Amino acid sequence: MDKQIRMEEYAGYQYIEGGVCAAQGFTANGLNCGLNPDKAKNDLGMVYSERLCTAAAVYTTNKVKGAPVLVTKRHLGMSGGRAKAVIVNSKNANTCNADGVEIAEKISELAAQALEIRPEEVIIASTGVIGQPMSPEPFAAHMQELAAGLSREGHTAAAAAIMTTDTVRKEVAVEFQIAGRKCRLGGMAKGSGMIHPNMATTLNFITTDAAVSTEMLQTALSDIVEITYNCLSIDGDTSTNDMVSIMANGAAGNPEITMDGTEYQSFRQALYIVMAAMTKMLAADGEGATRLLECSCVGCPDRQTAVSIAKSVVQSSLVKCLLFGCDANWGRIMCAIGYTDVDFDIDKVDVDVASAAGTIEVCKGNAVILPFSEEKAAEVLAEDEIHININLHQGEEQAKAWGCDLTYDYVKINGDYRS
Amino acid sequence: MDKQIRMEEYAGYQYIEGGVCAAQGFTANGLNCGLNPDKAKNDLGMVYSERLCTAAAVYTTNKVKGAPVLVTKRHLGMSGGRAKAVIVNSKNANTCNADGVEIAEKISELAAQALEIRPEEVIIASTGVIGQPMSPEPFAAHMQELAAGLSREGHTAAAAAIMTTDTVRKEVAVEFQIAGRKCRLGGMAKGSGMIHPNMATTLNFITTDAAVSTEMLQTALSDIVEITYNCLSIDGDTSTNDMVSIMANGAAGNPEITMDGTEYQSFRQALYIVMAAMTKMLAADGEGATRLLECSCVGCPDRQTAVSIAKSVVQSSLVKCLLFGCDANWGRIMCAIGYTDVDFDIDKVDVDVASAAGTIEVCKGNAVILPFSEEKAAEVLAEDEIHININLHQGEEQAKAWGCDLTYDYVKINGDYRS
Repeated sequence: MDKQIRMEEYAGYQYIEGGVCAAQGFTANGLNCGLNPDKAKNDLGMVYSERLCTAAAVYTTNKVKGAPVLVTKRHLGMSGGRAKAVIVNSKNANTCNADGVEIAEKISELAAQALEIRPEEVIIASTGVIGQPMSPEPFAAHMQELAAGLSREGHTAAAAAIMTTDTVRKEVAVEFQIAGRKCRLGGMAKGSGMIHPNMATTLNFITTDAAVSTEMLQTALSDIVEITYNCLSIDGDTSTNDMVSIMANGAAGNPEITMDGTEYQSFRQALYIVMAAMTKMLAADGEGATRLLECSCVGCPDRQTAVSIAKSVVQSSLVKCLLFGCDANWGRIMCAIGYTDVDFDIDKVDVDVASAAGTIEVCKGNAVILPFSEEKAAEVLAEDEIHININLHQGEEQAKAWGCDLTYDYVKINGDYRS
Repeated sequence: MDKQIRMEEYAGYQYIEGGVCAAQGFTANGLNCGLNPDKAKNDLGMVYSERLCTAAAVYTTNKVKGAPVLVTKRHLGMSGGRAKAVIVNSKNANTCNADGVEIAEKISELAAQALEIRPEEVIIASTGVIGQPMSPEPFAAHMQELAAGLSREGHTAAAAAIMTTDTVRKEVAVEFQIAGRKCRLGGMAKGSGMIHPNMATTLNFITTDAAVSTEMLQTALSDIVEITYNCLSIDGDTSTNDMVSIMANGAAGNPEITMDGTEYQSFRQALYIVMAAMTKMLAADGEGATRLLECSCVGCPDRQTAVSIAKSVVQSSLVKCLLFGCDANWGRIMCAIGYTDVDFDIDKVDVDVASAAGTIEVCKGNAVILPFSEEKAAEVLAEDEIHININLHQGEEQAKAWGCDLTYDYVKINGDYRS
């Protein structure tokens, strides 16, 4: 599958290059510090803003939390929701280690020293294998070099540093206006396996030059996570280390957004566009995936019902196998809709399956599967991006969820992950 | 993998042959009526008791319910919890069909006519592909032959008739005493794919010659389903047609059990033994499975906590891949324990992984993974039956859950199920 997703258009928002450095005043870098034995692959990344940023984050809901998650929470608490830098490594999650928190603090201090900032202004994150001892040595040995190499072009090196089983870098940025000021918001993400709703679901860093208060940053981030990353499922597993963070340095010069209103809504929309695009990229690059699945659920009494049903479909192993096998076994879709644990009348539901090759009506009420052409179904399912569209006809709310097919390669990748 | 599970021993209960005909007064039969184009494979089964039975059932929680589920509910309601026969087919679920209920009623009538009983004394079930038109013709053509061939030996033919992607027949029966009377309880099951907690999870028929009131049958069945079938996960999908039913004809001559007490507990234990063994058989024969996983969670504040944690582990795709790949990536087990949506202190938890080849201590408190020998881990994980043992040290309650590894063959079987 072509891992490049189709980017949706939104009036007033232009996609731009630059990832986490698209916003004014942010620099980044990435390098190999030796955690990854393949020296051609970056394993340590940094993002930096000389201007102090407001900052917010959403963390994994797993009870087993990676040490970096605990340390970032503490830092943002100590700094009152302010930050200047992100330090992040791959290949070792620094989770379930006896001295994990000490090590994460040590790495934060190393980054702070190199940048001449305070340790509590550092957001720290790690991804990789759980329960492997981690030494601060490789970090100490490379931190100066990492900081010295910070640049506006460094976003690709940083995005490469957070890749694990990802096959492509994930970066998105948009340019937009707030109160007549040109603003930018961009980010980078890693995903692939262990991605599941009901939590922050991925390692993800967002930067913006819009001025937004810590409170409104947190409000927007928590809200958008619900309808983007939390609507993504690769394999139903919820990681110990997942985190989404956002830093806003105000370099765009707009009056700081401190409450809901037109300006907040413009900012929130930018965040939605970037996070929805990255969510779709994560689904398309799911471990072993050959097909992207987008499930849209409309006509719902409330957003939670829409989210739950859409997620139930993209999470179904049998639907995922259906996609992989291009098998028009529609009963599996009906089945996954039916076991969603929310209240609705199944007899009013319409379902269709669509792709660039056309649309098949699966069901129009009464939970009865309609006759269809096997030939056309095969054509529709042969495309890279499949849409399952559900209309409950029971309200006005809607949501989307994203996933991918379940393939031999998923099993292969995860049968032997540590090697 | 050898699909034969190790049967646990229980004092006072002997395993016996006979499946659904182990109990006195039950006969059964199975044949090919043409739903399965492979004439060597049975697709229609019947179980019968001349004595009127008390009867109870647990049904799928899926909102999309197979027509036979709706019809059985109606029948048991009309008969006041009494039944004399089961009629069941494979290859077609009779679900999401416009005339499904009429057809299921028609098949019940055909069975009732052949047996000279009332239609509401018939428990009906179907399993197979969803949304395929079903004709009563093949049933009409073979019902007399099916009824005429009923015998005490017919349990194997009936058990064969309910197999779909199952590779082995599943039958278990025990002999035990109630109030000095020899009683028997046995059953047959089908499973393989689409098996998931939070519902009845499989097609399953149980018979006993103990005398038990409808109310106490329902109480026992609902209770035991919670800690057996509902603790089984193959792929996380919850079927539209799943049902567990029990019929008690009283032929053993014990005074009818109408309340809790010693006699009820003896009966409940027999039901537990048979249903737990069948649950384990279903896990061992999961689609594509090469390894059986039993997760035991003890030291819990309540049964629900124990059930939730044990299920979380057996459902984890990453743990399932770990088993397939024999990869000692213990972090995945910690991760799955951690994302269970119940309240407990993760820092008190002990975890070990055991098999016939030995035991590995994974964690003893503080959510820290202990050092271990890769060599020994490889030996332990190479066995057919793997046990993950969790102790919360936070109470006295416990539960088990069962699952299997995720393999290439699961993906293969489900990428092309309909053919």
